[in-house]
Amino acid sequence: MKKKILWINPVGGEEFNEPIKNLLEEIKQEDTEVKVVSLANRWGKKIGPKHVEYHFYEEMVLPYTLAEIKWAEKNGFDAAVIGCFYDPGLETAREIVDDMIVTAPAEAAMAIAMSLGHKFSIIVGRRKWIPQMESNVIKYGLKDRLASFRSVGLGVLDFHRDEKKTAEIIKREARKAVEEDGAEVILLGCTIQFGFYKELQEEIGVPVIDAVIAPFKYAEFLVELKKRFGWKHSKIGGYETPPFEEMDSWNVWEEYEFVEKETWKK
Amino acid sequence: MKKKILWINPVGGEEFNEPIKNLLEEIKQEDTEVKVVSLANRWGKKIGPKHVEYHFYEEMVLPYTLAEIKWAEKNGFDAAVIGCFYDPGLETAREIVDDMIVTAPAEAAMAIAMSLGHKFSIIVGRRKWIPQMESNVIKYGLKDRLASFRSVGLGVLDFHRDEKKTAEIIKREARKAVEEDGAEVILLGCTIQFGFYKELQEEIGVPVIDAVIAPFKYAEFLVELKKRFGWKHSKIGGYETPPFEEMDSWNVWEEYEFVEKETWKK
Amino acid sequence: MKKKILWINPVGGEEFNEPIKNLLEEIKQEDTEVKVVSLANRWGKKIGPKHVEYHFYEEMVLPYTLAEIKWAEKNGFDAAVIGCFYDPGLETAREIVDDMIVTAPAEAAMAIAMSLGHKFSIIVGRRKWIPQMESNVIKYGLKDRLASFRSVGLGVLDFHRDEKKTAEIIKREARKAVEEDGAEVILLGCTIQFGFYKELQEEIGVPVIDAVIAPFKYAEFLVELKKRFGWKHSKIGGYETPPFEEMDSWNVWEEYEFVEKETWKK
Amino acid sequence: MKKKILWINPVGGEEFNEPIKNLLEEIKQEDTEVKVVSLANRWGKKIGPKHVEYHFYEEMVLPYTLAEIKWAEKNGFDAAVIGCFYDPGLETAREIVDDMIVTAPAEAAMAIAMSLGHKFSIIVGRRKWIPQMESNVIKYGLKDRLASFRSVGLGVLDFHRDEKKTAEIIKREARKAVEEDGAEVILLGCTIQFGFYKELQEEIGVPVIDAVIAPFKYAEFLVELKKRFGWKHSKIGGYETPPFEEMDSWNVWEEYEFVEKETWKK
Amino acid sequence: MKKKILWINPVGGEEFNEPIKNLLEEIKQEDTEVKVVSLANRWGKKIGPKHVEYHFYEEMVLPYTLAEIKWAEKNGFDAAVIGCFYDPGLETAREIVDDMIVTAPAEAAMAIAMSLGHKFSIIVGRRKWIPQMESNVIKYGLKDRLASFRSVGLGVLDFHRDEKKTAEIIKREARKAVEEDGAEVILLGCTIQFGFYKELQEEIGVPVIDAVIAPFKYAEFLVELKKRFGWKHSKIGGYETPPFEEMDSWNVWEEYEFVEKETWKK
Amino acid sequence: MKKKILWINPVGGEEFNEPIKNLLEEIKQEDTEVKVVSLANRWGKKIGPKHVEYHFYEEMVLPYTLAEIKWAEKNGFDAAVIGCFYDPGLETAREIVDDMIVTAPAEAAMAIAMSLGHKFSIIVGRRKWIPQMESNVIKYGLKDRLASFRSVGLGVLDFHRDEKKTAEIIKREARKAVEEDGAEVILLGCTIQFGFYKELQEEIGVPVIDAVIAPFKYAEFLVELKKRFGWKHSKIGGYETPPFEEMDSWNVWEEYEFVEKETWKK
Repeated sequence: MKKKILWINPVGGEEFNEPIKNLLEEIKQEDTEVKVVSLANRWGKKIGPKHVEYHFYEEMVLPYTLAEIKWAEKNGFDAAVIGCFYDPGLETAREIVDDMIVTAPAEAAMAIAMSLGHKFSIIVGRRKWIPQMESNVIKYGLKDRLASFRSVGLGVLDFHRDEKKTAEIIKREARKAVEEDGAEVILLGCTIQFGFYKELQEEIGVPVIDAVIAPFKYAEFLVELKKRFGWKHSKIGGYETPPFEEMDSWNVWEEYEFVEKETWKK
Repeated sequence: MKKKILWINPVGGEEFNEPIKNLLEEIKQEDTEVKVVSLANRWGKKIGPKHVEYHFYEEMVLPYTLAEIKWAEKNGFDAAVIGCFYDPGLETAREIVDDMIVTAPAEAAMAIAMSLGHKFSIIVGRRKWIPQMESNVIKYGLKDRLASFRSVGLGVLDFHRDEKKTAEIIKREARKAVEEDGAEVILLGCTIQFGFYKELQEEIGVPVIDAVIAPFKYAEFLVELKKRFGWKHSKIGGYETPPFEEMDSWNVWEEYEFVEKETWKK
Repeated sequence: MKKKILWINPVGGEEFNEPIKNLLEEIKQEDTEVKVVSLANRWGKKIGPKHVEYHFYEEMVLPYTLAEIKWAEKNGFDAAVIGCFYDPGLETAREIVDDMIVTAPAEAAMAIAMSLGHKFSIIVGRRKWIPQMESNVIKYGLKDRLASFRSVGLGVLDFHRDEKKTAEIIKREARKAVEEDGAEVILLGCTIQFGFYKELQEEIGVPVIDAVIAPFKYAEFLVELKKRFGWKHSKIGGYETPPFEEMDSWNVWEEYEFVEKETWKK
Repeated sequence: MKKKILWINPVGGEEFNEPIKNLLEEIKQEDTEVKVVSLANRWGKKIGPKHVEYHFYEEMVLPYTLAEIKWAEKNGFDAAVIGCFYDPGLETAREIVDDMIVTAPAEAAMAIAMSLGHKFSIIVGRRKWIPQMESNVIKYGLKDRLASFRSVGLGVLDFHRDEKKTAEIIKREARKAVEEDGAEVILLGCTIQFGFYKELQEEIGVPVIDAVIAPFKYAEFLVELKKRFGWKHSKIGGYETPPFEEMDSWNVWEEYEFVEKETWKK
Repeated sequence: MKKKILWINPVGGEEFNEPIKNLLEEIKQEDTEVKVVSLANRWGKKIGPKHVEYHFYEEMVLPYTLAEIKWAEKNGFDAAVIGCFYDPGLETAREIVDDMIVTAPAEAAMAIAMSLGHKFSIIVGRRKWIPQMESNVIKYGLKDRLASFRSVGLGVLDFHRDEKKTAEIIKREARKAVEEDGAEVILLGCTIQFGFYKELQEEIGVPVIDAVIAPFKYAEFLVELKKRFGWKHSKIGGYETPPFEEMDSWNVWEEYEFVEKETWKK
Repeated sequence: MKKKILWINPVGGEEFNEPIKNLLEEIKQEDTEVKVVSLANRWGKKIGPKHVEYHFYEEMVLPYTLAEIKWAEKNGFDAAVIGCFYDPGLETAREIVDDMIVTAPAEAAMAIAMSLGHKFSIIVGRRKWIPQMESNVIKYGLKDRLASFRSVGLGVLDFHRDEKKTAEIIKREARKAVEEDGAEVILLGCTIQFGFYKELQEEIGVPVIDAVIAPFKYAEFLVELKKRFGWKHSKIGGYETPPFEEMDSWNVWEEYEFVEKETWKK
């Protein structure tokens, strides 16, 4: 089954596009078509944040991310992945699509981990990240499956600075999660932790869920379900789509650069 | 104690500014200075959404709302209120301020209601609103205090179309909340339900918390606490502020119209 | 990717094997190989229960089901699905496998539904089923995502007696779940409700998750994850496998017909 | 707005009246009138307990505390604060008042802390206190916002014996709460910890909520809400007031010294 | 095993002493010695409240109830039951005893019901009772086992006015609890509902737990456990006993009529 | 009251029958008749597992355990105890009995512990046990009363190898539970920990609940309640019994050695 999936790095920097593209090309199903974008230069201007550790950076990049979502749907993509473990804009994205699947790392990793073990721990970069991520775990309803958060004291951009040392620290905290906190599965709580899961998994001896692979494969999975069985984001309730007519009556197309009328027309 | 408080209607429309200003002038403490803004024409361009029932409309208005927050702090305001019962951007706002208080209707109404009765029900306009608002109740930790949501089947802009009929419907659902769901307190789940609480309260016989008054008075309260005792949003953890240097290195000032360098300088 | 998946109808009756086989052949990925078995005549003797509405019937069929699991792993299957919405023996099965994936309807349906809407309702046959299924929802940690159980008053073997009437009743209860209980997704709480989801989904307008399709596709998904990334049921903690040596020292092979030494040898 | 607020030290000892009075005079709003009482000599007899660390001591002082509540309402007070972090008698007090506001430290501190950070820790004197206080956190519905309890191993009467040492110990535990338990806000879990919050707050760098200031200011806040908007303790449900006629028919006035008929007459 | 158990009707009225005594004599173990007291005339003065539907009435009678507890322990009782479904003073009573068992209806009924069915409903007299009782269910940790509260609209003193009608109403609500709310067990939420359980149980077909029998039998049970195995209320933590020396230093004996020094001496 | 109670060691080994028989004879009520069985040689063949640490071993022994249950009911037993802290088959057993009481260690220990202290910790043998036991605590609804699990690193068959050392380790972990985790009561999480509770209790100073004594005494208690008041496992809902006619129509008697038609006839 042909699947066209967009991976969105919701940041301005482009340096992670290629490694993530390479990873996705390697892991995708044969007939899946992959496109990786970040927001840089996409909208005729430079997009600033190179990471979204802060709520505020999320707000900076979210409108452009959502524009990508609408663009993707208009251009025949079956799914889009918002590539940040905060799952930023996930609910909004599901609200504005008609039919396309949208996934994100945290939800996807949990939808997998729940079958692999009783409890999971999430390895995060910095303490700052925990409240928002914990809110998500609670929102997804899986608080009782969470063994712990463990922070390694690294910002997003630090993970690949000294990869050996990073691997050491992640391993140390993952081991504590397994031995002290009762975790049976480890979740890497940042997409930029890509590359570490395999060795870690072998050493620790429990599944280690990578934050890039998980949402991408989950997207492929959900796309198949949608195409075959019509299962897609429910449009009764919280994901109800804003009416085109209303947006048109407000003429939002003029005012918001990230709302392209074209992508909203049916 | 002098207090300078900004009420932000996070919408483009201006029609609610005056009635809310009038209401706030009436209810404020003597030495509180009130300013009410919506986002219309504030940024040299028209802002579209006249309500934010949809996540997407929130995303449209949020950057401008956050810009108002920073502007307010720079201009000596002690607090800002984000005037929508979804509490949109509340955590982001608290993250980006240094010292200013930020409040919003849902959290404030609950911080009051928890002392007035054992359980509260929230009267919302449409079913669409419930999942997001319920997520907030859960995020705030108060799920066990929630008796029910009750929807009246009215959009934000419908509340004041036929006020008599609106009052009737709200009353009917509020009464059911009290009699069938065990509510001891009623929360009006939309700022545009202003004007209805008083009569409703008298007829139903339980406190009815207005979504404009509650966050404004709570803001006055928190301002006093901050000025007197230094109690303000914690900066260790989830509300840690993004570093100016990083934003400057990305030169976000050029790219994001809603980030005014001026407001970030110390 | 080649996948070999066994569907186990954990009952003695054979009448559902063919329709489920047909359904799975229709929905499987191209290179997936499907085998459907029930327990009838598998072990040189007739297996009685034609449904497992009762805990006790589960206990009757579970040893043979687990034997199938071990047989499947020994014979090169990548996954097995235990085809009953009680998810009977799911944890035991994961404990005894080395490497094979095991899924079951309830868990799989929830791992899908959690991405499709905020809350789901489960349509069950009889009230009797609810406590055990609710325990599972709680065990999986998803209680807060559950809108309601709705019972249609039909035993497992009644669903296909008068399919038109069954469809009517399911529709009625599903509609109530959506309109009164706040469900955004419907889960069919019995594998023998197969055949109804599509029409129901179209009429109700929300995703309706079929209890046969969901775990089968989830199995395909998890198999892919296992083969590509080594993600499989964690063996540290609750799924730790009983040691062959211990079982051998007890010579359980003689006493338990469902434990075939062959399948335990490495 | 004139406010008349009674602070009740629900103990027999008088030694804390003056320091608390001084503190309240310093922090009150300009037009608030403060009265501080303990129960000593109030009822024509000496009242024993100098602290209420034990449930039983609470029971000793509670009738007199409730009598103070009724006396206060009869004598034109707008609010009363029950000055103990167990919030003893808070629900009873709200039941017996017609119109007056009643607050207490734990509830008030949480109603403030919930806006200041994601999670709070409570610094208590002795382990003995924790179960009752944790029950209150759960009763108020805020269990998920609680980071931890931390005990300093000091009884109520020990806090001011060696203030320097006390400050040291509190600081040590507060720091652990912030660094190890994820607290973003600290609550001082005893009114007699007054005097320590300011320095602690400066050193630890997160808001430290004082158990005297919090309920007093919250009382001022609620009084304003009551006077302006009629928001007061709901009388439908758990705070329904016992009927005067019934009490009169039992002639309780003779038997219970703490029930003054005068204060119950309308 | 000889057991000496005191049943305390924590009210002034004596009219229920005899019927409850008769009931207990009928249901007790052969070698159990039963004493039933109310608080009337016990302390040289009339005690007013004839029921304790209000928190405030509880506070009136609680000191005398606690005095009974201490008296009972001093006089060789093995257990005392506080005969009100609010379980008033249960924790305080356990705090002040050295060794005696204390039980109460709600906790005892739940400790039994949890083995008899998955969920229970509690039939209460009036809506007023629900918040406090629900707080207790939550405090005991059994919220997830609670199917519902159902109110029959009768005060404590109304139950035996028209017993036939009372039986009708209780039956109606109990049936709804079973059929609509999913209850598998019914708890009668008031000791004064004694006499109704048997017929109700036969008609409804689920166990109906009587609020007098349950705590009394549970008391006999716990007494046996204490005498044989030393299992009694833990004295490390929340039930730590106030020190005699402290009470003596405050000379509480003079001031609180309900604290008899004699009963505290070791 | 005469009571006939069967203790089932759900294992093949017989070595624990005698010590447990001796213990039960010592602790039983005078007119209770005790029978202790394991599954060895009971069914004309040797039963293998000597412990049931693994789900799979449970499945091996469960059918025979259930056969014992039915046999016991047919043969006039008033109650049966399934002697393993996993409470294996407890719900199934309650489903298949008409009238007999069935208990098991974990549930019984909690029904006792909930009256003895605010929180309890469970001392388990190995980490492997925790997820299943924690699921049970959650299923029983008592998660909030659980202070912690503490593992001593011993398999079931290791406890009595070096009793002095075992006592040491249990004591060490129990003490940590009390001092670090806030436990007020200790539960021994394995029936084979019998013999240790008394000394432990004296040394630690909190009640230590033995996993053999607790369910046996709770069984005696529930038997009395059943005989006197008709309180027994509810047959409406989850414990509804499978219909004899259906089983007969499937002629399960031939196929399942553990289903003896005799025991199902009425």
